[in-house]
Amino acid sequence: MIKVTLIGQGNVSHHLARAFRQAENVKLVETVNSRKEFSTGFLSNSDVCIIAVSDNAIRKVASKIRPNSCLLVHTSGAVALNSLSEENRRGVFYPAQTLSKSKEINFTQIPLCIEAESEKDLKLLRKLAELISGKVYEISSDQRRMMHLAAVFVNNFTNHIYHIATNICVDNDLPFDILKPLIAETADKINHLTPFEAQTGPARRNDTKTIKSHLELLKNPDYKKIYSQLSESILKTYGEKL
Amino acid sequence: MIKVTLIGQGNVSHHLARAFRQAENVKLVETVNSRKEFSTGFLSNSDVCIIAVSDNAIRKVASKIRPNSCLLVHTSGAVALNSLSEENRRGVFYPAQTLSKSKEINFTQIPLCIEAESEKDLKLLRKLAELISGKVYEISSDQRRMMHLAAVFVNNFTNHIYHIATNICVDNDLPFDILKPLIAETADKINHLTPFEAQTGPARRNDTKTIKSHLELLKNPDYKKIYSQLSESILKTYGEKL
Repeated sequence: MIKVTLIGQGNVSHHLARAFRQAENVKLVETVNSRKEFSTGFLSNSDVCIIAVSDNAIRKVASKIRPNSCLLVHTSGAVALNSLSEENRRGVFYPAQTLSKSKEINFTQIPLCIEAESEKDLKLLRKLAELISGKVYEISSDQRRMMHLAAVFVNNFTNHIYHIATNICVDNDLPFDILKPLIAETADKINHLTPFEAQTGPARRNDTKTIKSHLELLKNPDYKKIYSQLSESILKTYGEKL
Repeated sequence: MIKVTLIGQGNVSHHLARAFRQAENVKLVETVNSRKEFSTGFLSNSDVCIIAVSDNAIRKVASKIRPNSCLLVHTSGAVALNSLSEENRRGVFYPAQTLSKSKEINFTQIPLCIEAESEKDLKLLRKLAELISGKVYEISSDQRRMMHLAAVFVNNFTNHIYHIATNICVDNDLPFDILKPLIAETADKINHLTPFEAQTGPARRNDTKTIKSHLELLKNPDYKKIYSQLSESILKTYGEKL
């Protein structure tokens, strides 16, 4: 039985609490609202204390916790392990997924990236992670930083591209729903081909005529730049130039 | 019973032929290899002739077909209806999906965008489209051009972003598989929220510190520009500036 305390009231904390409650061999000792005053007495009864708060708040929340016997971890993709005080046993417990309270998710499919400073703590985190997820990865702080960067591309930037496409649809009386099967298929395709192999479109086939006409159709200067830049990068990837 | 002739040997033709063969009330009269000499005699026995060849080849293939009694359509998102000779009854039958011969797909979920010049022909195309797909849209040539542009964003550009993320993973000994659940969830999320609502990440929360550190981590100058440009566009979308 691993005893866990969870600090934070956000999306990550919400989903972790749910996963721990459903798991066997985990006891959620306490969930703590980091925005109120809290005592840290209960930590003496925890094996792991998970700080699941926003990146900017991690240091502040961690500073309220007096060094104690439990393993202190945060859940951020972008914050290094050593931003937690070295007076603690420290670690990271980062779910590489976009989480919203309003959307349920199968936690067993969420990749959990773990990091710790000793073999013993790594083993403890691995054990805890494997109780709630089938996908556990040991990742260093440097690697995690790069993974977070890659995640910004595939999540934040992809979503913004969906937003641009929504705007193109709205401006032309087209239902965005027409694009949804294409969006789903694009995401699914990389389970069968590498993105390098899956690439299609005007830039892939060096169809400069279509690229030019698309640039003329785009009125928003930011969208125009994004179109040019991505097309140029695709052309270069396959050894062509604009 | 609608009688169809299909010209072309590519991905679209492959999937259309399969869908027509499985459908009731459609007879596939002939499939024609456009790269060889072909007679057009059989067209007198067809209601619809579908030219499913690459954009650049449509005019050339269409020019080989002598005006006849059947409705001539192409399957391109980017080519206008009037690129087919006006001596024919003309139309468009555009599946808004990325299709590969190597990947099976449920055709009933593919949006079919149709266009024709008369009510009668539009009715015929709608009837044919509804025999193989549950998602049929009447779209003008102007709208289709904009939809194709939106499709370049959500398919081609999104896939290139996956490629960039693959490179970041490879360069840092990270398995790309870690990102696959995030990619799937990002695509699925827009079925529950608009992309505008679903946006998260450093640019969304105006976290300029993380944006700067990410730009330093990116060594490829094209990826750097793409990161800047997309971040700037996200910031502007939510009323902020870099």
